[in-house]
Amino acid sequence: MNELALAVFAAERDMHVVTEPRDARFARFRGRFDAAAYEARLAASGFRFVGRSDVRFPGLLRSIHDPPPGLFLRGSADAELLGRPAVAVVGARSCSGYGATVARALGRDLAAAGLVVVSGLARGIDGEAHRGALEADGVTVGVLGCGIDRDYPAVHGELAQRIAETGLVVSEYAPGVAPAPWRFPARNRLIAGLAAATVVVEARERSGALITADLALEEGREVFTVPGEITSSLSAGTNALLKLGATPLTCAEDVLATLGVEPAPARASAVSGDAAVLLALVREAPSGADELVRRSGLAADAVAAALVRLELEGLVVVADGRYRSAG
Amino acid sequence: MNELALAVFAAERDMHVVTEPRDARFARFRGRFDAAAYEARLAASGFRFVGRSDVRFPGLLRSIHDPPPGLFLRGSADAELLGRPAVAVVGARSCSGYGATVARALGRDLAAAGLVVVSGLARGIDGEAHRGALEADGVTVGVLGCGIDRDYPAVHGELAQRIAETGLVVSEYAPGVAPAPWRFPARNRLIAGLAAATVVVEARERSGALITADLALEEGREVFTVPGEITSSLSAGTNALLKLGATPLTCAEDVLATLGVEPAPARASAVSGDAAVLLALVREAPSGADELVRRSGLAADAVAAALVRLELEGLVVVADGRYRSAG
Repeated sequence: MNELALAVFAAERDMHVVTEPRDARFARFRGRFDAAAYEARLAASGFRFVGRSDVRFPGLLRSIHDPPPGLFLRGSADAELLGRPAVAVVGARSCSGYGATVARALGRDLAAAGLVVVSGLARGIDGEAHRGALEADGVTVGVLGCGIDRDYPAVHGELAQRIAETGLVVSEYAPGVAPAPWRFPARNRLIAGLAAATVVVEARERSGALITADLALEEGREVFTVPGEITSSLSAGTNALLKLGATPLTCAEDVLATLGVEPAPARASAVSGDAAVLLALVREAPSGADELVRRSGLAADAVAAALVRLELEGLVVVADGRYRSAG
Repeated sequence: MNELALAVFAAERDMHVVTEPRDARFARFRGRFDAAAYEARLAASGFRFVGRSDVRFPGLLRSIHDPPPGLFLRGSADAELLGRPAVAVVGARSCSGYGATVARALGRDLAAAGLVVVSGLARGIDGEAHRGALEADGVTVGVLGCGIDRDYPAVHGELAQRIAETGLVVSEYAPGVAPAPWRFPARNRLIAGLAAATVVVEARERSGALITADLALEEGREVFTVPGEITSSLSAGTNALLKLGATPLTCAEDVLATLGVEPAPARASAVSGDAAVLLALVREAPSGADELVRRSGLAADAVAAALVRLELEGLVVVADGRYRSAG
């Protein structure tokens, strides 16, 4: 299998290679490469490889202008999962409470509607999108910018494990490849390439998420961007995308409508009394607890109790001391 | 002068009239109407009337499909002021701290660049836009939805007076006309009609500011909308406008570029030390004081002192306990 040989050759030389080098070194490498033995070692470590000529290799990714030789997979799901309709949710690592809330809600709603949520397993927006999909008992795919055997960032090791239980962690890089900075833009083309649409939730100017958006646009995929406050530099990139003509996204249904997917039935809410009043106020505008006491006219302890209940039910999230609707 | 007679006839009958009624009642009214005496009484109260056939009547407003018979004016400025390049800044009455900050900054920056800032003198966004223009020693025009002699809302009486000192308060309604709800959509067509471009800062769905935007679009004027958080219902209208294709606005320069106006030279800032650190953090993301202590690593009293200084210099504003860049 030339594709596996190519991927392993690239890894050993610490190069990014997508087409077969026409030189003697690769010919020699391929001559002595024992694919069956390598695959057996991969399997023993819990990994698999799907070459780009394999029928199970996702068609959308094969159609980009520089598809990888193949994908290394971690997780129990069939590789066919990568061919299901997927949406990429990407954004800033050091995101705001707003961005985290929106990414989590989008991951949840898109996955609940049956879409595969693709992201880069990074801190911030990526992690929240994966978590949202898992919360909805949905399927999510994490795309690594390092070897398939690495957990990067280390803090997301447990998240990667949870993703692999029902979804897949994938990489074009063979075991042992270190997470060099130049590999992340390359990784971003896989995120954009696997997905029918890419949503940028929160991004600074000149950031990695904008590269993903550019790559998606170059491949003719839909790009959505989440509007944010013009006084926040974390929304400078997303608002700039709006100016360039990206489609504004205000709810998961915007993506579903474009892809022709039905939304999941709304969860029935049993909220009433004080909690219902507060939920309405929080939906109106994100607020601190003091402000909610003032706006609702309720006693401080009643507000505190109702907010705890709303948080436990997942209807309200708190970040930076402000309560927001969980979307 | 038929136009004044028409305006006064409409006021006396509590009707909205833009074309001369072809009936005997108006003919009788006009027959006995003493325009000179009425104008003398107007002048004695500090008001004037400019009919739509008057050369001083603003051309952009004359060109809308239903221009008023004329405009009543309050203030010392020449009526020609209404013919200068103008931008409408409109939005929600019960706006958020974010909306207030943006409206104030836009009013200031647009006026500093020499544009006339037009708005509706309402609470919230309108009032902030007027105040911003006044802060920049610029010119602003308040358009009333009631008789030219009324201060509506009453709480903006002093603001109307300040506007009239250098700019104009205008209305199509003669003295004595009460602020009936149906007059506000009619008033909005004057706001859109006087301006080359309309900016919607913050708006709920199905709100008056969206009517102004629709009217501006119908007249072929530019419409800008300020992106906001998708979890805030106060940005639901503005984000919906984005989806309909309105131009996203992230700074006053977006309007200036469209109208071919040079921005005012940037104010030199003498901020340094702790204040410069905090200003950078606040520009990064709006934050409470506690959060700024944590993010800056500065002592709480140093943060408090620097924030007061930044507020006094107008570089930072505080709303809902969060500090934001004044834009």
